[in-house]
Formats: sequence, structure tokens, C-alpha cells
Amino acid sequence: MTDSPSLPTVRLRPKAEARAIRHGFPWVYADELVTDRRTQGLVPGSIARLEDAERRPLGIVTVNPKSKIIARMLDRDEGAVIDRAWLGARIGRALALRARLYDAPYYRLVHAEADGLPGVIIDRFGDAAVIQPNAAWAEAMIGDLAAALAEVTGVTTIIKNGTGRARGLEGLAEETAVLAGGLDGPVPVPMNGAVYMADLMGGQKTGLFFDQRDNHAFAARLAKGARMLDVFSHVGGFALASLAGGAESALSVDASAAALELAGAGAEAAGFGARFATRKGDAFAVMEALQAEGASFDLVVCDPPAFAPAKPALEAGLRAYERVARLAAPLVAPGGYLVLCSCSHAADLTQFRNASARGIGRGGRRGQLLHTGFAGPDHPQLPQLAESGYLKALFFRLDG
Amino acid sequence: MTDSPSLPTVRLRPKAEARAIRHGFPWVYADELVTDRRTQGLVPGSIARLEDAERRPLGIVTVNPKSKIIARMLDRDEGAVIDRAWLGARIGRALALRARLYDAPYYRLVHAEADGLPGVIIDRFGDAAVIQPNAAWAEAMIGDLAAALAEVTGVTTIIKNGTGRARGLEGLAEETAVLAGGLDGPVPVPMNGAVYMADLMGGQKTGLFFDQRDNHAFAARLAKGARMLDVFSHVGGFALASLAGGAESALSVDASAAALELAGAGAEAAGFGARFATRKGDAFAVMEALQAEGASFDLVVCDPPAFAPAKPALEAGLRAYERVARLAAPLVAPGGYLVLCSCSHAADLTQFRNASARGIGRGGRRGQLLHTGFAGPDHPQLPQLAESGYLKALFFRLDG
Repeated sequence: MTDSPSLPTVRLRPKAEARAIRHGFPWVYADELVTDRRTQGLVPGSIARLEDAERRPLGIVTVNPKSKIIARMLDRDEGAVIDRAWLGARIGRALALRARLYDAPYYRLVHAEADGLPGVIIDRFGDAAVIQPNAAWAEAMIGDLAAALAEVTGVTTIIKNGTGRARGLEGLAEETAVLAGGLDGPVPVPMNGAVYMADLMGGQKTGLFFDQRDNHAFAARLAKGARMLDVFSHVGGFALASLAGGAESALSVDASAAALELAGAGAEAAGFGARFATRKGDAFAVMEALQAEGASFDLVVCDPPAFAPAKPALEAGLRAYERVARLAAPLVAPGGYLVLCSCSHAADLTQFRNASARGIGRGGRRGQLLHTGFAGPDHPQLPQLAESGYLKALFFRLDG
Repeated sequence: MTDSPSLPTVRLRPKAEARAIRHGFPWVYADELVTDRRTQGLVPGSIARLEDAERRPLGIVTVNPKSKIIARMLDRDEGAVIDRAWLGARIGRALALRARLYDAPYYRLVHAEADGLPGVIIDRFGDAAVIQPNAAWAEAMIGDLAAALAEVTGVTTIIKNGTGRARGLEGLAEETAVLAGGLDGPVPVPMNGAVYMADLMGGQKTGLFFDQRDNHAFAARLAKGARMLDVFSHVGGFALASLAGGAESALSVDASAAALELAGAGAEAAGFGARFATRKGDAFAVMEALQAEGASFDLVVCDPPAFAPAKPALEAGLRAYERVARLAAPLVAPGGYLVLCSCSHAADLTQFRNASARGIGRGGRRGQLLHTGFAGPDHPQLPQLAESGYLKALFFRLDG
């Protein structure tokens, strides 16, 4: 690699701790960096050298003076050049892991920091891929990123999904665009013996979350012969996997008609249509109605949206998780199974488990905890950030 | 059920908190119970009624005045009679879960408190089962327990394994005995496409641990074409599963010649003999020797004994886990995988993960955390005791 004398240099403050960064922590917070006029003037997404307070090099970073995370580590090698080839090498390394783990090219291909591409999410759906450039540098290099992605993986359709909370924190606008190829409708995605229909242009409401794949598979192990209820069903992740696992019937509940329609299309595509039903409505209200109707299921799954995405929402979020458990538990037949999920960063495993156990108790039931699942291995984490692992799935068996 | 007027009554002290017990906590500690002469005089393992300080019934418990856990909840129904039929009902409920989860009858059938049989462990190996009666009441009722087990499951050979730390805390002696049937050698156990040889009479050193099954399976997903190293191998759990998953070679390291011999027999039984090798010795010393020899593996697994079984051993235990990671990391080829396990109650997930990440760093490497695994679902937990979940397996991918 050639030297890059043209790169600006940013420097840690005298009291800032360089040790964590040397040990693999990938971020510099705004109050740890000398923010002189020159640094303040850097264009969001600029590439720079990072030095400690004694001017010893720490690596190549991207700087966004508008973000609380003012610098993100790109490469610990001072000589690295952040270009298309560099992006391709990082994507190639991420691809090697997924190719080992999965038989078919449907997975999260790049999971941001842990895959060495800070703020960049790439999901792969066969010949199509969706990039979420959630950091300014990735938005600035989106052309190179898309080109490297096509070169390394051979995907022909590339969508940029510029929605989501993280972009706002980086000062980026919402924007979704087709960067290459095109789509003429939802994409069928084979997973766990089921087929899911993913509308890649529709954003979070009708896309697909790969992170629950292993938890879908575990639920399917419990599903044989079961009457199954999937609350906050989205495009039918747990319901369709349960049907593939031999569930007698599955009922998907969601507030989004578009999501339920895709769930139904998936059930048809896999030949499960006759065993699948949907009910549109507010999940809490539908659970209350089902209880009033005396409904009973052998397997109930609740996978709600993040009730506690960040710390200020923690208390209210935990109350909402408790309420989900309290309303779901009475719907579980004696000796049946209850799966409770949280994708809240702010609620840790212990807090979520306690809220769930409290809710089950207030729903008049007791349970054994069989299994605790997290996001699948195509969502790797840096050990230094693992505390914040957002996705948890608790598998309970309730009393007989 | 008939009333049992003959049962003694034990009572919580006025300040003792009955709420946790009402919410499902299964234990009463010695300082929470009125320990008058009558209670002190109860034979360890006695069945009694438990009342709160206001004489309201809480359920039927077993009492051991010699144990810090002086009472354990057996049944919240005051009218329950703890007899062979009661034991059979509990075993039947446990069996229903395992029958749903597993295709073949090889699993932990009863996991103590969470399966409603406090202190009782039962592992099933086809037509044979091993009971660990780790609480005085189970020792006292061992005949009924074995009879109920045979009735409900149809097993013909029943071994009582009376070794292990927990019995000492209950004031029980070490003793292993054949309660029914008999064995003429190690039992072949099919799991994850491999065959394990379990010497059910040899105790922990040559028996089999079902708890790692799902973690064996995850390692096998990473093993295709890999040169694999299994440190603290025991009877070859990770090595044989990796060979079944397509590993090019596996080397098992253990200090026990008997365990390695069983691992070899398992490899032969599954047709993996030519790809399997063993090295007897102290695991730390062997890892140092392998490094000196310049050895390199695509997948390294370290599953040591509990270095921190209880709180006083925590600090030394975490140092030992760090040392395991430090010695193992350099043996992993660029881009290869490192699996680190802990079966220590005292070291929680965060502490163990931090010690592991520190060790990897001191071994000169960096890693992504792909997956965190716990004990399998045939080892259920009470949510109230889940914090102490002992088994953790961390799956890292190391830098290229």
C-alpha cells in the first residue's frame, strides 16, 4: 500500500483512553477527540488518520463531526487506502463466513462494525442485495460500495435502503433507490423449509429480517402437530417456519395488511395455504379478543417491535414486554410453548427475562425456560460491543 | 388426592419473604425457616407442609435440616401425595418435552428443579438411564424413583450415580450402584451424526454430557474441510461432531487416557478413525507444545472443566479462562474459528466473554463473536434461577 500523505489527522484528547481502541473498541466519542476548527470543518464521512495524544498512530478512521460517534475505525493499518479494492476485500471476508454457514445465498452479508465496515448493513437475497449505508462515509462511497459488492458476490440488483433511525444520528436524509438492476415484485426467500416473500423496496414494514432465522428453526422443533399463533407476525417468520415444521395450523396477527399479504403469499408458495390464516389488528387488542373467545394454542410466539430502543424508553418498554407476556400466557394450552422476543438494545437479557417471567406469572401461569436465542451468526458482534446484543428470544414451556 | 394429616409442618420466619416462593422460587434457605427442635429433628429428606409466617399454606416441600437449602418445593398443591404415581407424573411430563425435541431417546430426561424434581438428574441412553439423586429426599425415595422411571420410559437398565459435589452439601455419601438391569460395556450414543461411547459406570470422567449437543452441532457447521483441534476433549464431543460435519482431521487432547480411548472407539464406530488422532497430556502444556511446533488449525475448541465452580474461585477461574484463550488463539489459522466454553456457575456470561476477549487479545489476535450458546433445551431452567445458567459457549472468528 502506498502512503497517503494527503489524509487529515485527528487526535485524541490528552485524557482520552487509547487503550480500549488499541484493544479493538471501534469508536471515538465526540468528547474524546480534539475538535479544533480543522476537525470541525471536515466533511461528514471524511477519511483521516487517528493518533493518540502522544501522536502515536492508531489507524485510519472515518470522521463525522456531526455525530456523537465522531470517528469510527476503518483499518488499524496506517497504510491502508480506503478504496473499492479495500471495500471488496472486506466484503469478501464477510462472504467467506456466510458461504460456510449457509447452503443458499440468503443472509445478512455485512453486519457493520463486526465485519469491518462501520455503519454498513448489507442483506443478500440471492441475486439481489440491499445496502443500508447508516454512516456518512458509506453514503459518500456508495458507488464504490455497490461496485465492490457486485464484483465480489455477483449480485445483479442492488437497492439502497436509506431509512431507519441510525441515519438521522449521522445527519443523513431518508432515501431509497435502485443502484443496479431492478425488481418486478417481492423476492421469494427460502429459509428453514419455508418460503418468505420479501418486498425489498418497501422498507422495514415488508422487508425481511434474517436475524431470527435460528429462532424460527427452534420454534419449528416445537411445532409438530401444534395449533400455532404468531403475534406481531410481520411477513410470517415464525408462522411459516412452524408450518414447515409440521404445525397443524398457524394464525398470523399483525397491524400491517401489506405484511400479512406477503405472509399469505409465502404460505401459498410453500404449499401451506390451507393451514394458514391471518388476523389484522393491534396485537394487544387481538390477544385480548382471543382470550375472550376462549382460544387456545399449543405454541404462541410474540415478536414485537423494539419497545425499548434506547435508555429513556427502558421502563415503559419493560412494562410493554410484561404486558405482552401477560396477555399471551393465557392463550397457551396446558403444557404448551410460549416464545417471547425482544429486539430492544436498551433492555438487556436479564431485564427482558424478568419482565417476561413477571408477565407469565401475572397471566396466571408458570414456566420452564428451555432455550435462549440471539441473532444468528450472520449478525456477528465485536466482543467489545457484545453487551448491547439487541435480539433475544426466550422459549418457555408453560405448566400443564 | 387424599389429605395427609400425618405430614409435619414447617413455617417461614416472620421476616422471611414468601412472595418469591409464591412467584415460583423453589427454595427456602436455612435462615428463612423457623428451626425449632421439631424441624431440626426431621430426618433429611422428610416431606412436610410449608406455611408462611401467617400459617397460610405454600405447598409440599422436602426438608433437609443439614443443608443450607433447608426446604425445596415439591408441589404447590397442599393435597399432593409424594409417591410413586406422583414421581411418574413428573417424569412423564419431562418425557413429553424430550420426545418432542429429539428423534432418539438420548437426552437429559430430568433436570432437577426446572422439571419439578428438585435435586434429581436423570440422563437417558436408549434403554439405560443414570439417576443422580443429589438431594436427600431423592436418595430416600430412590426405589420409587427407579420404579417410576422404568414404568414411564420403559428403560431396563438403571444406574445410580452418587458422585459429585452436590451430594456432599446434602450430607450424602458417594455411592454408585446398578438399580436394575446391567451393562456389559460402554453404551454407543448417536448424536449430531456421530457416535459417542459412554461408560455409564465410570462417572464424570468417562460418562457423557448431553448439555453441549447444540454447541457441538454449531461447531460442526464450521468444520467442513477444517483441521480441527479439540482441547479438554473428554470422550470427543466436539471432535466427533466436527468429523461428522466434514472436518478433514481432528486431534483430541485430554489428560484422561480412558476418555481418549472412548473418543477413539467412537471415531471408529462412526467410520472416522482414519481422520482422528489423540494426544494425552495437560491441556495447557499441550497447547504450548503445539505452538512451539508451529501447529495451525482451522477450528479450535476448548471445553475445560469448571475453573470457577463457586464464588471463592471466581478470580482465579477467570484468569484460567483468559489463559486458555491466550494459548488457543495463536493456534487458529488466519480467518479460522475459536470456540471457548465455560461450565462455571460463578462466572457469568459477561465475565467469561470479557476474560475470553482479553485472552484472545493477549494471544495477539482479534475476533468477531458469531454465536453464544448455552446448555440444550433438555436442560431447562426455572426463570427464577436462570441467572446461574452455568454453560456458555462462545464462537469466535479470528482475524485473517
